[in-house]
Amino acid sequence: MARVVVDVMLKPEILDPQGQAVQRALPRLGFEGISDVRQGKRFELEVEGPVDEATLARIHDLAESFLANTVIENFTVRVEEAAEAVK
Amino acid sequence: MARVVVDVMLKPEILDPQGQAVQRALPRLGFEGISDVRQGKRFELEVEGPVDEATLARIHDLAESFLANTVIENFTVRVEEAAEAVK
Repeated sequence: MARVVVDVMLKPEILDPQGQAVQRALPRLGFEGISDVRQGKRFELEVEGPVDEATLARIHDLAESFLANTVIENFTVRVEEAAEAVK
Repeated sequence: MARVVVDVMLKPEILDPQGQAVQRALPRLGFEGISDVRQGKRFELEVEGPVDEATLARIHDLAESFLANTVIENFTVRVEEAAEAVK
């Protein structure tokens, strides 16, 4: 079983009020030095069987059709590497 | 300027109705072979200056205090590598 991650983010030219709200709150909360925050969605898909080119292409279609609104959002598809996290 | 990504996901033992809704819809939509979907949040933080250990520790605190609800959510902090995306 492999995990494929689809990240969906608003396009850079689209206003992101959620991210702005976080960014504006940070100095008040004592966190300086962060000039921008964007908030998006992360989908973790558990895929049965091997993740080959065909599977990734299928998940790409899936993301394009159902997970992202490609008018206002960009998305990326990637196989999750183990132990990539800092925490 | 560096980009730090904070991923916030519900803990595995917490029910994820959004992810379940996506997972259940997939066979109807013609996508088979995906056994589980979890949906979470992704924050992209643009950090001024260098991203060293101290900055990452600060962002870790920030994520723990404000971006994630650590009772029900796990989070990871990482510096985004260029060109990691498949698309």
